[in-house]
Amino acid sequence: MNNSSCILQLICPDRAGLVSELAGWVSRHHGNILHADHHTDSEAGVFLSRIEWDLDGFDLNRQSICLKVQELAKRLKGEANLHFSDQVPRVAIFVGKQSHCILDLLWRVRSKELPMEVPIVISNHKNLESICKEFGVQYQFIPSKKDSKIEAEEKILDLLNLYHIDLVILAKYMQILTGNFIERFPSIINIHHSFLPAFKGAHPYHQAWTRGVKLIGATAHYVTKELDDGPIIEQTIVHVSHRDEIEDLIRKGRDTERLALSTAVRLHLQRQVMVYRGRTAIFA
Amino acid sequence: MNNSSCILQLICPDRAGLVSELAGWVSRHHGNILHADHHTDSEAGVFLSRIEWDLDGFDLNRQSICLKVQELAKRLKGEANLHFSDQVPRVAIFVGKQSHCILDLLWRVRSKELPMEVPIVISNHKNLESICKEFGVQYQFIPSKKDSKIEAEEKILDLLNLYHIDLVILAKYMQILTGNFIERFPSIINIHHSFLPAFKGAHPYHQAWTRGVKLIGATAHYVTKELDDGPIIEQTIVHVSHRDEIEDLIRKGRDTERLALSTAVRLHLQRQVMVYRGRTAIFA
Amino acid sequence: MNNSSCILQLICPDRAGLVSELAGWVSRHHGNILHADHHTDSEAGVFLSRIEWDLDGFDLNRQSICLKVQELAKRLKGEANLHFSDQVPRVAIFVGKQSHCILDLLWRVRSKELPMEVPIVISNHKNLESICKEFGVQYQFIPSKKDSKIEAEEKILDLLNLYHIDLVILAKYMQILTGNFIERFPSIINIHHSFLPAFKGAHPYHQAWTRGVKLIGATAHYVTKELDDGPIIEQTIVHVSHRDEIEDLIRKGRDTERLALSTAVRLHLQRQVMVYRGRTAIFA
Amino acid sequence: MNNSSCILQLICPDRAGLVSELAGWVSRHHGNILHADHHTDSEAGVFLSRIEWDLDGFDLNRQSICLKVQELAKRLKGEANLHFSDQVPRVAIFVGKQSHCILDLLWRVRSKELPMEVPIVISNHKNLESICKEFGVQYQFIPSKKDSKIEAEEKILDLLNLYHIDLVILAKYMQILTGNFIERFPSIINIHHSFLPAFKGAHPYHQAWTRGVKLIGATAHYVTKELDDGPIIEQTIVHVSHRDEIEDLIRKGRDTERLALSTAVRLHLQRQVMVYRGRTAIFA
Repeated sequence: MNNSSCILQLICPDRAGLVSELAGWVSRHHGNILHADHHTDSEAGVFLSRIEWDLDGFDLNRQSICLKVQELAKRLKGEANLHFSDQVPRVAIFVGKQSHCILDLLWRVRSKELPMEVPIVISNHKNLESICKEFGVQYQFIPSKKDSKIEAEEKILDLLNLYHIDLVILAKYMQILTGNFIERFPSIINIHHSFLPAFKGAHPYHQAWTRGVKLIGATAHYVTKELDDGPIIEQTIVHVSHRDEIEDLIRKGRDTERLALSTAVRLHLQRQVMVYRGRTAIFA
Repeated sequence: MNNSSCILQLICPDRAGLVSELAGWVSRHHGNILHADHHTDSEAGVFLSRIEWDLDGFDLNRQSICLKVQELAKRLKGEANLHFSDQVPRVAIFVGKQSHCILDLLWRVRSKELPMEVPIVISNHKNLESICKEFGVQYQFIPSKKDSKIEAEEKILDLLNLYHIDLVILAKYMQILTGNFIERFPSIINIHHSFLPAFKGAHPYHQAWTRGVKLIGATAHYVTKELDDGPIIEQTIVHVSHRDEIEDLIRKGRDTERLALSTAVRLHLQRQVMVYRGRTAIFA
Repeated sequence: MNNSSCILQLICPDRAGLVSELAGWVSRHHGNILHADHHTDSEAGVFLSRIEWDLDGFDLNRQSICLKVQELAKRLKGEANLHFSDQVPRVAIFVGKQSHCILDLLWRVRSKELPMEVPIVISNHKNLESICKEFGVQYQFIPSKKDSKIEAEEKILDLLNLYHIDLVILAKYMQILTGNFIERFPSIINIHHSFLPAFKGAHPYHQAWTRGVKLIGATAHYVTKELDDGPIIEQTIVHVSHRDEIEDLIRKGRDTERLALSTAVRLHLQRQVMVYRGRTAIFA
Repeated sequence: MNNSSCILQLICPDRAGLVSELAGWVSRHHGNILHADHHTDSEAGVFLSRIEWDLDGFDLNRQSICLKVQELAKRLKGEANLHFSDQVPRVAIFVGKQSHCILDLLWRVRSKELPMEVPIVISNHKNLESICKEFGVQYQFIPSKKDSKIEAEEKILDLLNLYHIDLVILAKYMQILTGNFIERFPSIINIHHSFLPAFKGAHPYHQAWTRGVKLIGATAHYVTKELDDGPIIEQTIVHVSHRDEIEDLIRKGRDTERLALSTAVRLHLQRQVMVYRGRTAIFA
């Protein structure tokens, strides 16, 4: 029904004529632009662009597109990413004991809301294995203990390699990945159960309750080496009152967590997120 | 500090190459594109574009821009609007007895939040005259009675002409303008105190209370001949409970009304609203 | 861990001393009040009360409580409902083809978010049978055709009786129940995919798209004979833009539907909803 | 139209029978309870109650009420506050250079939304004097310099005394009050332009922009000696995107600030806020 399309994300120093240059290039090769979105951060002097065009009738093949785009990026002293809409990303989901995020993600995959494949779920607990099997997903139990963390991470990295994983989603994994891991596999989205930068670290709902806030939040962000400090993709909030005990915060939080996470994953998969200077631009 | 810029809004039948054509034209004349936003309604086969470029260094003068843009629109079988950012629109605000919207608008003008001039306020009541004078705005009392409505509207149309008014804002005017008026002065934004299309017509808060809704809303929309049926620019909502009496709905509604109205006016002034097929596209 | 508690909901004509009378009665029988919430609709002259007390140490048994409460209601010319927190309501969920609401409800039951049992799911389609079985729930396929509607409803009523069902949840059932059915089984919660009273009836998302609204909603309400006109329990909304096609509205709507429905069900199960004059008071 | 009512706020150690005891006392003296709201913090073992009753027909005069309530509080080892609805609190508003919060508050006072009198506005700047005069409010310029802070605060305390001020509102005062001041005049509400505890201290919008958050907030709270750490009364938020520059955050923030502040002030004036253990219970 839908033709395949090509999405180009470009980030480069700002100068006049960039929109015209990009659009002109697509047009000269007979590409029909479906979406074109640009942003200039004037203060930083940075230009960001996301262009999506129909591949039907485009007179370059995929290999040529890749080459041309890399030339373009080099000439503009920037960075470019290409994505073809018919290439379905392969995602590994890491979970702990809690089921709400993983169940929500798997349901959205099955409902065709999220264009991704989930060949494997990895966990340091065993309790979610049956759910994953119900959804036909391979479940790998890898215990995570203090003294075997490095080995565990090596095993996981091997699996990511074996399964050709493009993206890792930490769906309430509750383990802190080492800097080494993040360096070797940097494409990771995490859900943190607070309105960052408030309540970093452990037990954010307990912190929130103690502080007596009137709203609690959830933050989906890319993982960087600095804990809970990566570029924010999506934040959602929910009202709380003095009648809410900590367990109510946790319950209400589950709804806002899965919403923030699934929205962020969707934006990422559709290549609507661009990261620069520790922040994101969302072209939605 | 800021240079003047030019904003082009174009609406035309969709075909390949439009983004490139528009951006290319701006670029060839040495215009630096500040914002470019496009939307294609595939089902309707309609292309909408809003392009803003810096006039500094652009090699066409304003008259030539106007001519060229009209040629372009004609060739593309579409419609184009041009706006120069240094031309401050002249706005007439129509009010009834209630002060919250007018006070909010005048404060935002004074605070430079809304780039517009308000040379005149028109009302069928006298009670807001002193507020307007505090803000240095001319106040014209024009009584509106059933049997003199046509004469009243003629007087108002004369004033709009005399003061070179570009836009009328109905800030709780509580009078229904005739089809004749709207035809002769079609650029009108209204605030309706409900979440349209729910609760059209009179006394929406009473209707909302009776129905027992859990949220009430406000809708800012362009005025068309069909009552409360014009293209919606902005909608805002606020939670209510069984503890809220009708007067509480009215009070809470005032906050959401002024927010919806000022947001809509701001979007309109920045030429971020495009109307087609009874709906709006918001390029914000 | 938690003791059993008793929840009394009382609705009666307002007069002085009611709060004291109710609290005094509980206290004299050595009940510790856990929650006490009251509301007076002054205009209607109606008093509503919800009192919850610990049964531990209370000196009346359940049968006596029931008798005394009925006497009380009679004397106050009102109506009373009693609920014991350890009596888990039995709920039948009716579904059509869509899975998001049923899956969400079953997950919340399993996660102990919703204190209810679901012995049976009834549907006029077969596609959700496997999901229900995964959750260990009986699935009954009852086709619904125009000429056999009455027989189908009789079968369903028999099942509700057989399974001792207390509440029916229409989780995207997409069938209109007859007045006869509603009269014989009046405890029904429905989720309507619009911000009622806007967009009643069929295809609300199509209607919303055509009207060009900026927010779409979902409404969970009790079912009455008048279509989509029963007392509203919960409404939720989500922002939409011109970029959202009808399928995007449907997708975004799913999230807001399941949130409104599960919240309404939770409020109902905790006896936090009281209905009077076609409206609800929510004691949360 | 409305009779005067009496509002009792009581906080004491929890035990059985408290609701009945309070309601019974009001009832025995022929008071008709208009609102009764209670909360038990089970973990802390604290009971909070807010009861409002009609004074019409109540058989104790105000002096006796005060005495009896103090006796009651003593007996229950708690603290009680009494408020009579016809006693209009006298409020001093402290401002800096920014007008949005003060203008909003003064408008709400004039519109009878906020039941308070504002005999005086105090500022370390002169620019808002004319606005205040337009609203008929006395304006006192008291410069605040590093080396004269103590003298300035003494002058202010004298004014609060002279004008019989009950409450101070910091409506973007932008000065940090000393611990000495707060000790001597502890009834102070502040608006902080962030979603506390995120972005304490100076320049929260700059901090928010740098962190790349997707929502910004405002927090109205009671002032304590610890900066930005007092009990939170109300929090509001607004969405932001990568297109928002810092000045856009500041602009959007103004709307959310004045909403949070006016809501908090209203809750305080209606005695719907109770503070315990650094948190608030909101009985609204």
